[in-house]
Amino acid sequence: MKIAIYGYGNLGKGVECAVNNAADTELFGVFTRRPPETVQTLSGAKVYHIDDILNYKNNIDVVIICGGSATDLPTMTPSLAKNFNVIDSFDTHAKIPEHFANVDAVAKENNHTALISGGWDPGMFSINRLYASAILPDGKDYTFWGKGVSQGHSDAIRRIDGVKDARQYTVPIDDALDAVRSGNNPELTTREKHLRECFVVVEDGADKEHIENEIKTMPNYFADYDTIVHFITEEELKRDHSSLPHGGFVIRTGKTGINHENNHVIEYSLKLDSNPEFTASVLVAYARAINKLYARGDYGCKTVFDIAPCDLSPLSNEELRKTML
Amino acid sequence: MKIAIYGYGNLGKGVECAVNNAADTELFGVFTRRPPETVQTLSGAKVYHIDDILNYKNNIDVVIICGGSATDLPTMTPSLAKNFNVIDSFDTHAKIPEHFANVDAVAKENNHTALISGGWDPGMFSINRLYASAILPDGKDYTFWGKGVSQGHSDAIRRIDGVKDARQYTVPIDDALDAVRSGNNPELTTREKHLRECFVVVEDGADKEHIENEIKTMPNYFADYDTIVHFITEEELKRDHSSLPHGGFVIRTGKTGINHENNHVIEYSLKLDSNPEFTASVLVAYARAINKLYARGDYGCKTVFDIAPCDLSPLSNEELRKTML
Repeated sequence: MKIAIYGYGNLGKGVECAVNNAADTELFGVFTRRPPETVQTLSGAKVYHIDDILNYKNNIDVVIICGGSATDLPTMTPSLAKNFNVIDSFDTHAKIPEHFANVDAVAKENNHTALISGGWDPGMFSINRLYASAILPDGKDYTFWGKGVSQGHSDAIRRIDGVKDARQYTVPIDDALDAVRSGNNPELTTREKHLRECFVVVEDGADKEHIENEIKTMPNYFADYDTIVHFITEEELKRDHSSLPHGGFVIRTGKTGINHENNHVIEYSLKLDSNPEFTASVLVAYARAINKLYARGDYGCKTVFDIAPCDLSPLSNEELRKTML
Repeated sequence: MKIAIYGYGNLGKGVECAVNNAADTELFGVFTRRPPETVQTLSGAKVYHIDDILNYKNNIDVVIICGGSATDLPTMTPSLAKNFNVIDSFDTHAKIPEHFANVDAVAKENNHTALISGGWDPGMFSINRLYASAILPDGKDYTFWGKGVSQGHSDAIRRIDGVKDARQYTVPIDDALDAVRSGNNPELTTREKHLRECFVVVEDGADKEHIENEIKTMPNYFADYDTIVHFITEEELKRDHSSLPHGGFVIRTGKTGINHENNHVIEYSLKLDSNPEFTASVLVAYARAINKLYARGDYGCKTVFDIAPCDLSPLSNEELRKTML
């Protein structure tokens, strides 16, 4: 199976690693908006300009599109689905139905198979919410994120006057996790579920007190949370906060029994050293599935909900039943 | 969707509760080997003799077969698949390929849809092993069971001379769980992963020391484990050990990155007050899926690996994408 990477940022690099990690996948190359000769890949993979991708239509099984959800993917994914099987990690939850419809129409018209919103949330977390709710209908589920770096919140801090750089960690609150696991179906406020910890580098002479206040009162991003602000040096930021860890928990508790007397806890958790590399690993597993669906003539747009687990594996169904069931 | 329960022990009662718990399922009735008039159901469901089930061929969408894996299911499931869509929880791992082939042949020949080995292990644990290994090929997975009651080990103790009753708990060892989560891929012996805790009621005048030694040295069941034996009274056993809790952990750790420098932990865990009621809840969710597959003309034998998550849910794909992705 030959995979092409479309867009070569953190996620694209993660896909490059994941393709090298899987025994049955091969990297055709990387497509970039930049002049190809200026891009050096991690593994020495070939680099092409995105404008040339149609020349390789017959050499690529699946294109993994590593663009941003805000402006790239809404146009890139439908456009590429015309000529390729494609996967993206579109994560603007509210716009998923619209994006799905756009990609589905193009993929069906052109006999291609596409998957949108792969990764871990949306992605593996979504699957776990679905399984758990189907098994325990009389229950409630909770998703916690972190401890991990939120790029959006880090960017929001960087936009404040006097801030040179920043890194924001979303931290799930242990007491809230414990309350959920108890099965008491607590109603938790935003503030009770997560706290936000910020590491901020300021320009010389900046008013730290003012900046801290700006952060803590920022609507949507911080105002509803307990927020901790640490001012650190540029060197400290580089040394201690340059990786992109993340993770989280999906927990469903539910009751069974003729009098609803028995309680059950289903918990799925991720602890990731590298958010983009893990997301990329999920995408490569789904590329395998999309390639199988395409071979069976199952065209159109899919999500992780539509893919049977067996299609993610390089093993045959017989081997899976024998070794993993 | 009308469900029939075939066999009315702990699992059958669990299915009765789960069917009542789900908004889109209805219990047609319970089929038993006993004289129907002697069986009182939890919810007042109708009771029929198993010999009469063919009379209701057109009234039942899915039969959930609640027999034992050792002697019941190998004959019951293929035989019922002739006339019904069926589900079982066959859990003799080594014999799954043979059982699958038997059920598949009958189901295909008679245009029915079947699922074998539903539940949590095999079942949800298997799915999690598969997803995690597909995502992190450069890794290793571990399954831990408990804390929970093992019926097989409890029975083994009961067969010792002088033992009136017994309950055995399988307990995962915290140090082993922590070692696995660290990502160091430890090689763990049987003794390092689980311990066995036994609560034993003996007959008057029985030689406790001898019984304790018999338990601790019993090959296959206890000899390879650290085993704790408590002698208690019949009243204590009834009061403190009459429920059937269980659970466990599936953990996969794996590496990503161009130099395999990043570590990831995927963990799925269950904490169940009632093993049979949870297993039954999984079976009812898969009954929904089997009914959908049957309606689409997708006949033959399936396992949890073959079923896309969306088919377990009563919600439409549009609703799922909108609310759960």
